[in-house]
Amino acid sequence: MATIGEFTLHATDGKARTGVLQTAHGPVRTPIFMPVGTVGSVKGVAPDDLDAIGAEIILGNTYHLYLRPGDELVARRGGLHEFNAWRKPILTDSGGFQVFSLSGLRRISEEGVEFRSHLDGSKHLFTPEKVVSIQRNLNSDIMMVLDECVPYGADKDYTARSLKMTTRWAQRCRDAYPAGSGGNLMFGITQGGFFKDLREESIGELTRIDFDGFALGGLSVGESKTEMMDILYHTAPMLPAHKPRYLMGVGTPLDIINGINAGIDMFDCVLPTRNARNGTLYTSAGKINIKRREFAEDDGPLDPNCSCYTCRTFSRAYLRHLFHAQEILSYRLNSIHNLTYFLDLVRGAREAIAQGTFAEYKSRYDAIYPQEAALCP
Amino acid sequence: MATIGEFTLHATDGKARTGVLQTAHGPVRTPIFMPVGTVGSVKGVAPDDLDAIGAEIILGNTYHLYLRPGDELVARRGGLHEFNAWRKPILTDSGGFQVFSLSGLRRISEEGVEFRSHLDGSKHLFTPEKVVSIQRNLNSDIMMVLDECVPYGADKDYTARSLKMTTRWAQRCRDAYPAGSGGNLMFGITQGGFFKDLREESIGELTRIDFDGFALGGLSVGESKTEMMDILYHTAPMLPAHKPRYLMGVGTPLDIINGINAGIDMFDCVLPTRNARNGTLYTSAGKINIKRREFAEDDGPLDPNCSCYTCRTFSRAYLRHLFHAQEILSYRLNSIHNLTYFLDLVRGAREAIAQGTFAEYKSRYDAIYPQEAALCP
Repeated sequence: MATIGEFTLHATDGKARTGVLQTAHGPVRTPIFMPVGTVGSVKGVAPDDLDAIGAEIILGNTYHLYLRPGDELVARRGGLHEFNAWRKPILTDSGGFQVFSLSGLRRISEEGVEFRSHLDGSKHLFTPEKVVSIQRNLNSDIMMVLDECVPYGADKDYTARSLKMTTRWAQRCRDAYPAGSGGNLMFGITQGGFFKDLREESIGELTRIDFDGFALGGLSVGESKTEMMDILYHTAPMLPAHKPRYLMGVGTPLDIINGINAGIDMFDCVLPTRNARNGTLYTSAGKINIKRREFAEDDGPLDPNCSCYTCRTFSRAYLRHLFHAQEILSYRLNSIHNLTYFLDLVRGAREAIAQGTFAEYKSRYDAIYPQEAALCP
Repeated sequence: MATIGEFTLHATDGKARTGVLQTAHGPVRTPIFMPVGTVGSVKGVAPDDLDAIGAEIILGNTYHLYLRPGDELVARRGGLHEFNAWRKPILTDSGGFQVFSLSGLRRISEEGVEFRSHLDGSKHLFTPEKVVSIQRNLNSDIMMVLDECVPYGADKDYTARSLKMTTRWAQRCRDAYPAGSGGNLMFGITQGGFFKDLREESIGELTRIDFDGFALGGLSVGESKTEMMDILYHTAPMLPAHKPRYLMGVGTPLDIINGINAGIDMFDCVLPTRNARNGTLYTSAGKINIKRREFAEDDGPLDPNCSCYTCRTFSRAYLRHLFHAQEILSYRLNSIHNLTYFLDLVRGAREAIAQGTFAEYKSRYDAIYPQEAALCP
């Protein structure tokens, strides 16, 4: 039986790494993409679909689950795995990001962040201790500390003061749940906006706390691709090499390829499921929009190189029809495909790293998305 | 190899019958319930789900598919089975019912019915010959003739004139596609409103035409349960015994039980999928609304006597949460369950008829829905 929290690197290729993280609900092979199950389900797909497409870990949103159905109700069900019937690992965010992006009337203080529910306007307070308690109730395999995700454009002074508070909040999270006191792992989140010295300062402070992994937060918040890549490639290698590194809320296929190239191990993003719902589908020949007239009589599969249920079973013509008719089935079939694409991408990356061919693997994705690749290393 | 259109009765029990209808896409065991795949998908469920829950035949809507994506486009795909990847039998309605219920500005004449699309207001004409041509393009296993579904409350004079035109339309459908000229079966539809003598007249006229089966149309259009049962029990036994009998657009579990009891073989209704979407779920203990507070912490399965994926996997508490959070997954899981309930109902009926215990089987359903049963024989 592997030790919970144990992170073993099997191979590296340049800065890219592949390994395994052990959690209370089993191993996660890295690099990994985590489908986002916002309110307790990955939108449109069931656990049997997730199993079929090879998902190894999903993400749950602390903010949403705290508000509805409530973390205590979930705890009485035996935790989130029992509640949503997904028996493999679950990572939960701290809820901070949703507080900053969804809720009204938030007020940040040293104590924590006060906010109003986007559902009913009720008032709530998230403190570092509170979000740990919520995530313990959810029985998350990987809990995230409360942080302030600094908005894009924040000045250096604000960003510097914010990251110091984020560090103090991180310490309070750790103190509320000391390392090794249970089966729930805890990751720290580094911030620092788009100032390299502040990023370094944040990493320096955070890594003095004994976390099971470290995240890069505050990226993909509105900055240009160039700015994001600059910070990503500068900071990812500074995160401890022997702990899993998580790039939060990122991103496009090429963002993930670059993240892996910079030494990141874990990714999550709503992009595959959100795009599935607006008809933007990823294929081995690039993105397509299934709405387009050109697919009306296209009897071929969405992606001839994909082995998902959608591609094995249906034509582009039918998928286009379902989308235009706004059939519920459209969302499921498109989500199954897009998630398969993202999971295939990280599976392929793991194999390429193990074989020492990651540079070649990356260049194949660069060729699929040339305009985006032109903005990346 | 069985002959297409062959209908073999294996057992009868009172007026109830069980048998097999052979179609170009395989056999259908009767009595059967047909999930409704309005625009080419059964809302929220995919062909793999339909296979898993034991569906044997689904219904496609001629009106919807004619307007979008167009029957000629479907024909170029190789027909509806190739298009939607459902390889088992499909019955298509004639489109008449949707013209009367959905479209604007309809004008009925001897020639056919002119209407405006509910999608874009464009003008169209359905003639008996046209709806046969559309259904041939869809390559339907069972085509329905064009009829006028007389609205509830129509007077006897209107109803009498309408049924005569419906008979002439039926003959024109048959003439457009003579019996035995292809693998697509064709059913006639009897009308006559709520006048028994007109019902008898319609059956007398229709059954002189060589159809592969006969439907009771114009029921479940707003009448009371008592009126419906009165017409159902009076007319069903008058339909030819050696051909399949189809009660269109009906109905509740107890309507189906009574239909079988009156000698009906085939049923279709949007009730299980529509109710799934509004949270009304059928269980072996009766209907429940999953929205209700009482299920918030209910860890039991939706129905302990059901073996569907939803009941095997999730708790009522989780299903309630998904419904309240308006998750897409809610619709799929609820639809899988409700369709399983309706398919289990007809499967059980087939077994009971074969064993000569249908009266007992019916009394079990009467006990589950006592208020409705009080209005039925």
